[in-house]
Amino acid sequence: MSDEPSALVRALTDPGTIAVIGASDDLGKLAGGPVHNLVTAGFAGRIAPVNPRRPEIQGLPAYPSITDVDGHVDIAAIVVPAASVLAELRRCAEAGVTLAVVFSSGFAEIDDAGAAVQDEIAALCVETGLRVLGPNCLGAVSASRAVVVSFSSGLRGRHEPGTTAMVSQSGALALWLYTGAQRAGLRFSQFVTTGNEADLTVSRVLREIVELDETQVLLAYFEAIHDVGALRGLARRARELDKPVVVLKAARSEQGARAAASHTASLAGSDRAADALLSRLGLLRVGTTTELLDAARVFAPRRRARGRRLTILSVSGGGGIMMADAASAHGLDVVEWEPEWQARMAEAIPAYGSPRNPVDVTGSASANPRMLEDALRVAVEHPGTDLIAVFGGDTALSAPWITSICAVHGETDVPIVVGWLGAGESVRRFTDAGVPVFGDPTAAIDALALLVRHSLDPVEPLPPDAAPDPLPEPVRALLDGVRAQGRDTLDELEAGTLLRAFGVDVAPGARAASVEEAVRAADELGYPVAVKVLSPVLAHKSDVGGVVLGLGDPSAVREATARLLDIATERSPAGDAAQTGPDSSPSVLVQAMAPPGVEMVLGMHRDDTAGPVVLVGSGGVLVELLDDVTVALPPLSTAAAGRLVDSLRGSALLSGLRGADPVDRDALVDLVVGFAAMVHALRDELAEVDVNPVVVGPSGAVAVDAFVRVHDHAATP
Amino acid sequence: MSDEPSALVRALTDPGTIAVIGASDDLGKLAGGPVHNLVTAGFAGRIAPVNPRRPEIQGLPAYPSITDVDGHVDIAAIVVPAASVLAELRRCAEAGVTLAVVFSSGFAEIDDAGAAVQDEIAALCVETGLRVLGPNCLGAVSASRAVVVSFSSGLRGRHEPGTTAMVSQSGALALWLYTGAQRAGLRFSQFVTTGNEADLTVSRVLREIVELDETQVLLAYFEAIHDVGALRGLARRARELDKPVVVLKAARSEQGARAAASHTASLAGSDRAADALLSRLGLLRVGTTTELLDAARVFAPRRRARGRRLTILSVSGGGGIMMADAASAHGLDVVEWEPEWQARMAEAIPAYGSPRNPVDVTGSASANPRMLEDALRVAVEHPGTDLIAVFGGDTALSAPWITSICAVHGETDVPIVVGWLGAGESVRRFTDAGVPVFGDPTAAIDALALLVRHSLDPVEPLPPDAAPDPLPEPVRALLDGVRAQGRDTLDELEAGTLLRAFGVDVAPGARAASVEEAVRAADELGYPVAVKVLSPVLAHKSDVGGVVLGLGDPSAVREATARLLDIATERSPAGDAAQTGPDSSPSVLVQAMAPPGVEMVLGMHRDDTAGPVVLVGSGGVLVELLDDVTVALPPLSTAAAGRLVDSLRGSALLSGLRGADPVDRDALVDLVVGFAAMVHALRDELAEVDVNPVVVGPSGAVAVDAFVRVHDHAATP
Repeated sequence: MSDEPSALVRALTDPGTIAVIGASDDLGKLAGGPVHNLVTAGFAGRIAPVNPRRPEIQGLPAYPSITDVDGHVDIAAIVVPAASVLAELRRCAEAGVTLAVVFSSGFAEIDDAGAAVQDEIAALCVETGLRVLGPNCLGAVSASRAVVVSFSSGLRGRHEPGTTAMVSQSGALALWLYTGAQRAGLRFSQFVTTGNEADLTVSRVLREIVELDETQVLLAYFEAIHDVGALRGLARRARELDKPVVVLKAARSEQGARAAASHTASLAGSDRAADALLSRLGLLRVGTTTELLDAARVFAPRRRARGRRLTILSVSGGGGIMMADAASAHGLDVVEWEPEWQARMAEAIPAYGSPRNPVDVTGSASANPRMLEDALRVAVEHPGTDLIAVFGGDTALSAPWITSICAVHGETDVPIVVGWLGAGESVRRFTDAGVPVFGDPTAAIDALALLVRHSLDPVEPLPPDAAPDPLPEPVRALLDGVRAQGRDTLDELEAGTLLRAFGVDVAPGARAASVEEAVRAADELGYPVAVKVLSPVLAHKSDVGGVVLGLGDPSAVREATARLLDIATERSPAGDAAQTGPDSSPSVLVQAMAPPGVEMVLGMHRDDTAGPVVLVGSGGVLVELLDDVTVALPPLSTAAAGRLVDSLRGSALLSGLRGADPVDRDALVDLVVGFAAMVHALRDELAEVDVNPVVVGPSGAVAVDAFVRVHDHAATP
Repeated sequence: MSDEPSALVRALTDPGTIAVIGASDDLGKLAGGPVHNLVTAGFAGRIAPVNPRRPEIQGLPAYPSITDVDGHVDIAAIVVPAASVLAELRRCAEAGVTLAVVFSSGFAEIDDAGAAVQDEIAALCVETGLRVLGPNCLGAVSASRAVVVSFSSGLRGRHEPGTTAMVSQSGALALWLYTGAQRAGLRFSQFVTTGNEADLTVSRVLREIVELDETQVLLAYFEAIHDVGALRGLARRARELDKPVVVLKAARSEQGARAAASHTASLAGSDRAADALLSRLGLLRVGTTTELLDAARVFAPRRRARGRRLTILSVSGGGGIMMADAASAHGLDVVEWEPEWQARMAEAIPAYGSPRNPVDVTGSASANPRMLEDALRVAVEHPGTDLIAVFGGDTALSAPWITSICAVHGETDVPIVVGWLGAGESVRRFTDAGVPVFGDPTAAIDALALLVRHSLDPVEPLPPDAAPDPLPEPVRALLDGVRAQGRDTLDELEAGTLLRAFGVDVAPGARAASVEEAVRAADELGYPVAVKVLSPVLAHKSDVGGVVLGLGDPSAVREATARLLDIATERSPAGDAAQTGPDSSPSVLVQAMAPPGVEMVLGMHRDDTAGPVVLVGSGGVLVELLDDVTVALPPLSTAAAGRLVDSLRGSALLSGLRGADPVDRDALVDLVVGFAAMVHALRDELAEVDVNPVVVGPSGAVAVDAFVRVHDHAATP
């Protein structure tokens, strides 16, 4: 069950009074649109035009000001010039309006002066509790109560209510998608555009709308994801209520991001991090406008997949083959039927058809329309069938097929998709009957795969949105010490301490400021050892010859240490702790060598959108050759970290390729869990972490080198 | 200019007389369809119904037999039951009919008896020169002369001629695609379905149709590619005539291939080899039915790309961003405009638009329709623009946009694509004006990328279809010797000889049947050496411990040879040359060690469809980890082999990763060229070749191990 809807949602979906500030009698002007749209939609509440120069607008009594309207105003639509908007919004706040919808443009999308006014709008909202859609938005529709708050002639008329909501940053694109979908018979509960998002973002609107019982599927179009907090809240509630959220996030590429920047002046973040964010939240990402609307179709009947076994019924062999190809690409199983079920299917179809799956019903179904219906019923009864896809198209005799498919669809709760090559009327018939239909056999399976993902892919509960817990005292002291020295980078020993505090195994080592200290340390650690320059200012020690590996005896340690101390002195003069690290004298790290194993890398960085993300990748040559890296949001459960590791192409190395012994994958997974926990706990502290390599051996996994940079002040993301 | 069309094509596209054998008066029956379809299409030639029981059919005089029809019959459509088809075809051959179109089903798609009759049809064609479409096909349309040879009511009516041909193995799928495209305003020159392909295949029909001046774009749907010879001929002519051929090849996956097998009983070949074949032939492969029709749209105006620089104009920022994303995915460059050209564009669009590219014309274009037209003209004049994409959609005021776009499209030869979210009528207006329009911004760019591929991607001339040249005498002698011993595999020394004969460098080595011979050979080659069991029956020597590497001195060679000779004797007893190789005594190969380098693999196998193909892959762990292999058709030019090598992910290793020295890529490319030349020269001889590894060093590339299997008889593919 949904929570009680917020005041905002009640205003949007069941308003008693809608005012239109700046309403005009002239239907040829944009300002004439809002009142006319409400009337033609059949809005049954009160429409209150506000215009100080007219006693009546479009036959309705007009008010000089919003403050003159008696009783509560749920929505105030604003169509005055940009220069007057702020004053009107102040009056709205004064009048206790719940939601203002600002169509006017001329704000942040124009110039700095416009942006400043927009900031004032944002501040007004915080101050007064008024909520604002826009400015520069196209408005909103809530169909069940005929609420059409928009100037656009594209939204004129009645809106048959459905159970899908579409919320979009872009106005025109969404309008075209919405009206096109309506023409094709799809129905919506809400349609909301957010424009410049001075107050309400796409994420926030979705977060509110998800609570509505009348809305079961949510579609979103983003250029940049603002308000990740609201998006997380949305994701949590959508999961609880089992409502799919389908996201079209544009600006995937650099070229696209550049276009988005000039369009909305917002940083798009990296596409990989956006993927990680959406996938962590269990939101379903699609790549094209067509896929977004196809998602609306496939989720409309509110069915879920109980498994991945797909039965395909086709009246043309070719379509069945195309569907089987697409199913393979998505990991759906087109399993050959059991002999006894093939025999049952064979009774329904002609001898020259194929009962095996894909089932070829053949074109004879034209002559005998019962054939397809009977075959479909057998498929529905078949216990090894979790999903059904039907392929067909218009012929002079195919109208009964549509009737049959719609009838059987209505009798079962097995997800059924239809790929249909035909005219608009056929598509309309399927759509009116609530049957998901697609204009291409491949598209039908693509959409079905999305339904399967939503039904079966594991999504773990999100951690609460609380502020980070207080840090363990040693960690707090370490970070405070670093900052006290005016540094923002840790030296390797400090980085090791930090990692160990979160359970990440790091190769043991000790600081040495002299040759003799180094030999003592090596004797204690046991040979062979590595010796490295220890310096918070040298992120790339090996580039300056600051790393020597595999030193087998004291004399080798002595020789290497002498040389590295020279480098350290040169790079980080004694006495300057900001450059040498806590001990203020040039020094080296003497470190035990990790046993040989498979090299991996771990990292953390801050994405503009997603915030702190964890990177896990194959090490050595593979990371450069393949960019074999995956990104996820912390924290990670053991299962999630395991999936992350297994998704790398290089993960095959862990289980031992070409006769090599397998290494300790589970230890790597535990290490990733610890690392992600650190990133999560320090999410307000860390700027960048690079652990390279992590060596995974036959028993255990150990970090061998680490670089950590912190915010130079306790920071917000 | 096209060659003179063949008799077949003349019959199909400009027939004087079309007979319908088995014609019926009853329009409710399939047999009533063909005559009715010809009449309603407006066919101006003679229609000759053949029916021994009626003097008249649908108002036309009927003939008792095809042999009674006076004068030449170009096409005989056959709608009699399967059992009578062969007899009717014999009569057609006797009467000198050019092309018979057999709709009747009940042949290879039913059972073995049907397949036998179909074989007789094929034999009849070879014997008499009669050409046959079908059986079990849906017929053919040639629009310019109103030739509609089909029983299908789906094809009834007039067919406006266009310049695109669609040829398909599947009937129903193609019919739906064709009629759907026609509803959307697309026009076709020919539509041909080949059904069971007893005689004419999709490849063959395309090979004929490509010669027609009226046909400029060819679309093909294959489940299995038959008649690769005809496909090669088609490709060569399509290239010469600059006509794009777009191929939808289904049955990509195992699941799809299984479905195809039960549908058409034909082996689909591997999808990778199909890709190699189509790409070598310069045919454009698409993945979905929607993409196939989108290709028809984008090629219809017969424009070519002169470069990859794309300018995007959008009336909604969102659409422009989606287009920029898609362009990135296809390697099209959305280059920011020069300041002076931005200034020119800025004059056309509002101040709050963006003139940089993507150009955001903004929704103000609604109020001022000239805006979009002016902006489009600036883009056309901009010298840095090779391609233009426009995004828009229906609004109450967008009709003039369509007029503008169509007008500017008509004034330039720059390729322009339109992504348009709107109703059927808008799409129709663009289509009627010859402007390529797509229902999704991404799809518009996908189609444009196909045009760019056709315009700019290098496709090398195909070698002539001649039989292989006589082999060099030593190669002939080697292969004859192997066969004379009843073997089909070469031992490693023989494999090396074969490879060297085609210029492939192989690590030098010598046969040794005793410890002393081995030491002598090693002394001559220089240390270190490898010693391997030499046996044509042991393909996987290392699995039985039959390979010892890096032997540094005579005693090591002695020890290893003694051990390997034991293994050789056990596996390949002395005296059985079929098992020991040419010298009939168990022996080892003593081989120089290749200098260290990057490991690659080469191979050859025979694909069911494409014939002999060459595989080039990364060696070592990468081939297993990544399946980093690419497939191509031999022979290969140096440029083509270079592209193949560079397309591997592992190719980055060749140029030296992480400070490693680069190795001799050019030597590897030369080696691939030699290997492909060998495969091409021995295309009727070889069954399987595996060269693993090839070691690419700082100077030179050398094959270190090779396995070769030949056909046990001189074979056809």
